[in-house]
Amino acid sequence: MKFKVTQENLARALSMVARVANTKSTLPILGNVLLKIDNNRLSVAATNLDIAIKGYLGAQIQSEGSITVPARLFQDFVNGLPSGVIELEQDEQRLKVTTDNYKSVINGMPADEFPIVPGVEKGVSWSVSGVLLKHSLQQVIFAASSDESRPVLTGVYLHTTGGKLYMAATDSYRLAECMLTEIDKEVKILIPASALHDLLRILNDFTGDVKITHDEQQVQFEAGEVELIARLIDGNYPDYRKLIPTSFSTSATLTRSELTNIVKVTNLFARESAGSIVLSVDEPSESIWVRAVASQLGENNATAKVTAIGSGSITLNSRYIIDALQAIEGDTVTVGFNGKLEAVALTSPAHDNYTHIIMPLKS
Amino acid sequence: MKFKVTQENLARALSMVARVANTKSTLPILGNVLLKIDNNRLSVAATNLDIAIKGYLGAQIQSEGSITVPARLFQDFVNGLPSGVIELEQDEQRLKVTTDNYKSVINGMPADEFPIVPGVEKGVSWSVSGVLLKHSLQQVIFAASSDESRPVLTGVYLHTTGGKLYMAATDSYRLAECMLTEIDKEVKILIPASALHDLLRILNDFTGDVKITHDEQQVQFEAGEVELIARLIDGNYPDYRKLIPTSFSTSATLTRSELTNIVKVTNLFARESAGSIVLSVDEPSESIWVRAVASQLGENNATAKVTAIGSGSITLNSRYIIDALQAIEGDTVTVGFNGKLEAVALTSPAHDNYTHIIMPLKS
Repeated sequence: MKFKVTQENLARALSMVARVANTKSTLPILGNVLLKIDNNRLSVAATNLDIAIKGYLGAQIQSEGSITVPARLFQDFVNGLPSGVIELEQDEQRLKVTTDNYKSVINGMPADEFPIVPGVEKGVSWSVSGVLLKHSLQQVIFAASSDESRPVLTGVYLHTTGGKLYMAATDSYRLAECMLTEIDKEVKILIPASALHDLLRILNDFTGDVKITHDEQQVQFEAGEVELIARLIDGNYPDYRKLIPTSFSTSATLTRSELTNIVKVTNLFARESAGSIVLSVDEPSESIWVRAVASQLGENNATAKVTAIGSGSITLNSRYIIDALQAIEGDTVTVGFNGKLEAVALTSPAHDNYTHIIMPLKS
Repeated sequence: MKFKVTQENLARALSMVARVANTKSTLPILGNVLLKIDNNRLSVAATNLDIAIKGYLGAQIQSEGSITVPARLFQDFVNGLPSGVIELEQDEQRLKVTTDNYKSVINGMPADEFPIVPGVEKGVSWSVSGVLLKHSLQQVIFAASSDESRPVLTGVYLHTTGGKLYMAATDSYRLAECMLTEIDKEVKILIPASALHDLLRILNDFTGDVKITHDEQQVQFEAGEVELIARLIDGNYPDYRKLIPTSFSTSATLTRSELTNIVKVTNLFARESAGSIVLSVDEPSESIWVRAVASQLGENNATAKVTAIGSGSITLNSRYIIDALQAIEGDTVTVGFNGKLEAVALTSPAHDNYTHIIMPLKS
């Protein structure tokens, strides 16, 4: 294997691929990236067996072949090189890298020991705007659980209902749902949030359409010259839509930044109580009060003007409110709730494709 | 105690003072800041018993008094408040804080339990430009040791020689020295680097002169409305100046950014050898080679064009070279050395008030 590539292109490909490599794996080769040339195309790939990412890039190819090299070292090394042309040449299990000012040898491992993750050959295929996919993912992914004891909740659920594509995540304490677009396919897949964090990195500055193909076991995302394959989570996602309240006895509409500020400051006094704060809406005075009492630290009462319908109080985890307010779009937000133990909804009047639900705490 | 102050002024004073408070101390009140009004002036103070910082700020005072409140909470709280006027009122051991939209109560502790760090009353006093002091400190402080078993090396040494003020720090593996200014006082003090890190934060955007007063035990820095008092380190600083080489059998002068780049990239291959890299200067080809060999990873050879005098090789810790290259000013740097075991000097031809010495590794 021998080829020339620009530092910029190789660094960009590695930035999308290399993070999946895991140097702590019991299988050492999973800490490596695979460099491979076939059919006159150079690819860079990495996998952790659950997720595989491959990037194709332009190169001036002199001879075919393949090798794996340590991902972290190779990425740091390429990032450190000056921009311009790099020459790479395989010498058995070693990769020689040469530029005007550098002559380096990186010890690798044989490519034939690198695990092959098969692509999705047959399955349902559809496309969605990369910008929309990225934005929607950012609005829901943080609500997924990190608790491996309930694997289903560690995923993001993509499904179609009534000809529309929805994305949802919940850790059972809060839930985020986003409607992406109308679609003429039937979709019902549960994708690990970890794989979607990698997808977000790939979509970072990608503005084209993403092609999504899935069968019963796997999903494949193709974004330009980069593809990501992930194993799906097996299991039934909870029927979450019945948890979303549709009417409220009390609601308050106010500036999103103002609610964010008063919740953040009040949160400082909620450390002792694990983030528990009380929201009170008062219709006659058109105000919301956010309150935390800490026996040791003191107490805080913060208020803001709102458009109120009804009056009432609810106890919530301030961390969840802050997360939700970051995900919601627009300048204005509506907080709606019913009884003390019923789900609270945060929505943006101008962006009704996104709903965020938080379960209240016992007060 | 009752007063009004702007959020901006209080936040700024706390940013300089509050970091010294230590919530992990066995004496809980050391995690608090002291708010005090006397002689119609408001001050905010914190101490860890080794270092004390006090800031004065403008306030509209209604009644005198003093209280201490948890530093971290109070700082986060004030930072989170909207800009504008804040009203603070003492209610026994509680501090009531009121703005248009906030009514808060912070539980405090009595001010008379707060340890008093006496100022330096009699001693030598002199002034130096705050910008120069900050810049010089940044050039030497990182070379101080963090190993408490040799307390003398955890300090920065300020001393006068031949009517000039010098600042030096060494961890015995490397040494940084800076000449600040001419001075008509005799100075010979050893200040804990930790106190000077706090001073750097205070000097961040300070452009005036700093007044320095010291006796045998303490040093006091006054920068505008903020003062820092630190206990001096007791002990004799090593006679480091005799370690600084004055002539070199081999030297190479090159662009500082280029040397930084090739050392950083080569450093990637020096992990196995604890950062050990070899610098070779070759006069005939007017080049420097930087080389690291790692049995597992591979090897790297990087080169750059230099103005060379003499030829030779030296083995150094790459981490120390990178630190030194960050501290040195100017576009050009000279690396000079003699025998394999003798000190290496890094200097900038255009800024001869700064010298950096690194002891070589056995190769």
